[in-house]
Amino acid sequence: MTRSTERPAPLSFRHRHLLGIDGLTRDEISGLLDLSESYIDRMRQKEKGSLLLGCTVMNLFFENSTRTRTSFELAAKRLGGDVINMQVQASSIKKGETLLDTAITLNAMHPDVLVVRHPDSGAVNLLSQKVDCAVINAGDGSHEHPTQALLDALTIRGRRGRLEGLIVAICGDILHSRVARSNIHLLTTMGATVRVIAPPTLLPGAIEKLGVKAFTDMRKGLDGADIVMMLRLQTERMQGSYVPSIREYFRFFGLDYDKLGSAKPDALIMHPGPMNRGVEIDSEVADDIGRSAIREQVEMGVAVRMACLDLLTRKLRDNLGS
Amino acid sequence: MTRSTERPAPLSFRHRHLLGIDGLTRDEISGLLDLSESYIDRMRQKEKGSLLLGCTVMNLFFENSTRTRTSFELAAKRLGGDVINMQVQASSIKKGETLLDTAITLNAMHPDVLVVRHPDSGAVNLLSQKVDCAVINAGDGSHEHPTQALLDALTIRGRRGRLEGLIVAICGDILHSRVARSNIHLLTTMGATVRVIAPPTLLPGAIEKLGVKAFTDMRKGLDGADIVMMLRLQTERMQGSYVPSIREYFRFFGLDYDKLGSAKPDALIMHPGPMNRGVEIDSEVADDIGRSAIREQVEMGVAVRMACLDLLTRKLRDNLGS
Amino acid sequence: MTRSTERPAPLSFRHRHLLGIDGLTRDEISGLLDLSESYIDRMRQKEKGSLLLGCTVMNLFFENSTRTRTSFELAAKRLGGDVINMQVQASSIKKGETLLDTAITLNAMHPDVLVVRHPDSGAVNLLSQKVDCAVINAGDGSHEHPTQALLDALTIRGRRGRLEGLIVAICGDILHSRVARSNIHLLTTMGATVRVIAPPTLLPGAIEKLGVKAFTDMRKGLDGADIVMMLRLQTERMQGSYVPSIREYFRFFGLDYDKLGSAKPDALIMHPGPMNRGVEIDSEVADDIGRSAIREQVEMGVAVRMACLDLLTRKLRDNLGS
Repeated sequence: MTRSTERPAPLSFRHRHLLGIDGLTRDEISGLLDLSESYIDRMRQKEKGSLLLGCTVMNLFFENSTRTRTSFELAAKRLGGDVINMQVQASSIKKGETLLDTAITLNAMHPDVLVVRHPDSGAVNLLSQKVDCAVINAGDGSHEHPTQALLDALTIRGRRGRLEGLIVAICGDILHSRVARSNIHLLTTMGATVRVIAPPTLLPGAIEKLGVKAFTDMRKGLDGADIVMMLRLQTERMQGSYVPSIREYFRFFGLDYDKLGSAKPDALIMHPGPMNRGVEIDSEVADDIGRSAIREQVEMGVAVRMACLDLLTRKLRDNLGS
Repeated sequence: MTRSTERPAPLSFRHRHLLGIDGLTRDEISGLLDLSESYIDRMRQKEKGSLLLGCTVMNLFFENSTRTRTSFELAAKRLGGDVINMQVQASSIKKGETLLDTAITLNAMHPDVLVVRHPDSGAVNLLSQKVDCAVINAGDGSHEHPTQALLDALTIRGRRGRLEGLIVAICGDILHSRVARSNIHLLTTMGATVRVIAPPTLLPGAIEKLGVKAFTDMRKGLDGADIVMMLRLQTERMQGSYVPSIREYFRFFGLDYDKLGSAKPDALIMHPGPMNRGVEIDSEVADDIGRSAIREQVEMGVAVRMACLDLLTRKLRDNLGS
Repeated sequence: MTRSTERPAPLSFRHRHLLGIDGLTRDEISGLLDLSESYIDRMRQKEKGSLLLGCTVMNLFFENSTRTRTSFELAAKRLGGDVINMQVQASSIKKGETLLDTAITLNAMHPDVLVVRHPDSGAVNLLSQKVDCAVINAGDGSHEHPTQALLDALTIRGRRGRLEGLIVAICGDILHSRVARSNIHLLTTMGATVRVIAPPTLLPGAIEKLGVKAFTDMRKGLDGADIVMMLRLQTERMQGSYVPSIREYFRFFGLDYDKLGSAKPDALIMHPGPMNRGVEIDSEVADDIGRSAIREQVEMGVAVRMACLDLLTRKLRDNLGS
């Protein structure tokens, strides 16, 4: 069996891994989005690709995530790659050296791409330093989740035609959110204006250093926004004293039509999923066919991951002369 | 890589999904069984098919079932399809909307077939209304398990040459059994005479409305039967007061050679597995080489699932011009 | 799609299964190692093989083992085979007949190779008697783990050019170790001198009958050794009274540079993984780039498993005329 030589236009991307959005240039992000766009049709068609034929993608998940794992698995298989899933209980792994032993062990099996999710910020970076293959960060602690930010950007570009100049309001548990962090890096780099909205206790102190404006009043934060990006509330963290209750949370920070009225009339509604309906978002708003882009985000996720797998295996495939 | 165009004879099947046997016509069932039969040899041969090349089958199991999941996975892979397994804890999913969000999310990834098992009756139907792809019910609560009924029928046809006119006795926990329900629909539609045998507390009140005759005495129910179909006893449900004990259950409703004496001398013994030996069936009877068809049922299961996957992706493949 | 006919030189191997090293002849072991060697390059290259196209390998694991399962999965996929993973809780399976029912059920689905791990010694042999396909023992209780011994031998041959005449010291929990048992059979058959080193309570009484010399003093056991093979300490078993503490264990039986000084100056350090750093092996020793062969062991594991899958499916593929 032979690997196809079909290939989109060349693209300058200096990195061996995709660990985060922070540090990527505007050109690199644009290039990745263009490449992702070229995969949208191929994802929808029922055609078995052969770009990754003979390549092995390992999904190494130290945290459960059916959605993200499935999206990567599908992307790799559509391109003809072999996929191996590993669900590891982070609790059964001792920190530090043992994570590295896992990495070294897997590396010795010659995978081509390791897709890693880990509950600790920085764990994926650490692991990437010990392996020969490409590493994609599929979410590490509250640090980064770069493919989520890319799929969000691809969705926005698809609907609005551009990122530059848009006002994007990210709303919810900013403090713990890797999705927020990756989106802030991407959107500010691409020239969008980013606002974050959260209760004071869920707002990191130095957040404005990232080039965003912080709000604790949702109506003010949404005022004139083009894009409203809701975050999942980790309700298991709501036990503490800093938020009165889920009912209170929804009252002040849940997205309903009333609060949405402050945004632009055609503001796009986004959510990385899975949603807590009635907690951070009203059910009717989530299902608003004209304005909610939540399904498209999932769809774009597969295209983005196909592009990332293509990009990070190019050097490898070039070496093989294919 | 290209998809093969090999194809069995055309078949009229009006449905986009396979949610149950109830509602299928005699012709549709016959057609499905004929198609399944044509897959028996192909299943046994070690040949990689290409009918489903580029198609994605997602196994979405909200209940654990190694056997059924494996059978579908094998069927899809033998036909060249990509398979993605998702084992979801139903307990961690809130009912209603969230099941639908899961469905909508997966649908956005463009699978071709969703194979779904769920502990709640009706959950698979609900889910099927929200997706574009074909859905196969792999068992929902105590409602239906259509591929099990089809494989049982294929096994009987293989041994007896027909379904019509046979006397089939289904014995055990009829009340909770989706296997019984699907078999009753299939067998009565195809002209077999169906009897159900159970302790009074495990017999639904209105069961005779389905066109079967109910018995609480096993010897009377088995009298003259061609086929004896035992059901798995959910022993975890036996804690209540309505059945004295497993020992008592076996004494009155366990299949041993003594009770089997009431059936026809060559009566076929069936069980959907996994068996509780010594509870609903005597070990010697289960292993009776001449009369037990239990292994064949498993084998036919793969052929039936290959046929169902073929059938439900035909329209899709036609659209692609292959 | 067609299966390739590429094939290494013929090899005499009389067995249908690979259940253990015990009982294999010197020629059979040599042949397996030669075949494995021929797979080292193919494993490293990113080429999709087709030797197992249309063949199904089922990984049936009654004990968790990400490492071994992944290695088999990778080996099968590199050869073009389909892989189905089954993780079964041994606790939920009743012993004896029900294990056999599982085997009979899977067998009815016509897999080509069953790779089985089980917590009970002898369970894999029992299961192998009930199926038509080839069975590979991926570790059963404290009995055997043949592919581990083969990969260890391939690693040693790669570094030393031979097995014969070498002094190999196996150190740790000999009593419970299937790795030790398979290695003892293989190494003594191939003409190496094997020593086992353990605290008296972790040393089986009749171990010297296997042709090895037993030591309870590590420095004496390591004296002049060419190869130092450390075993993983099952720390969960260390609760009893027979070993004072992990700290004491490391002091007397943990491999550090001080104790290693007794072995030959270039003695090779091996460990089957996963390691307990600071328990049975000092971290620095484990990472000794010149002398530790731990990463190579993992790498050789994939080549060995490719060879085993090739070998055990030959008859099948011959019958198919490919």
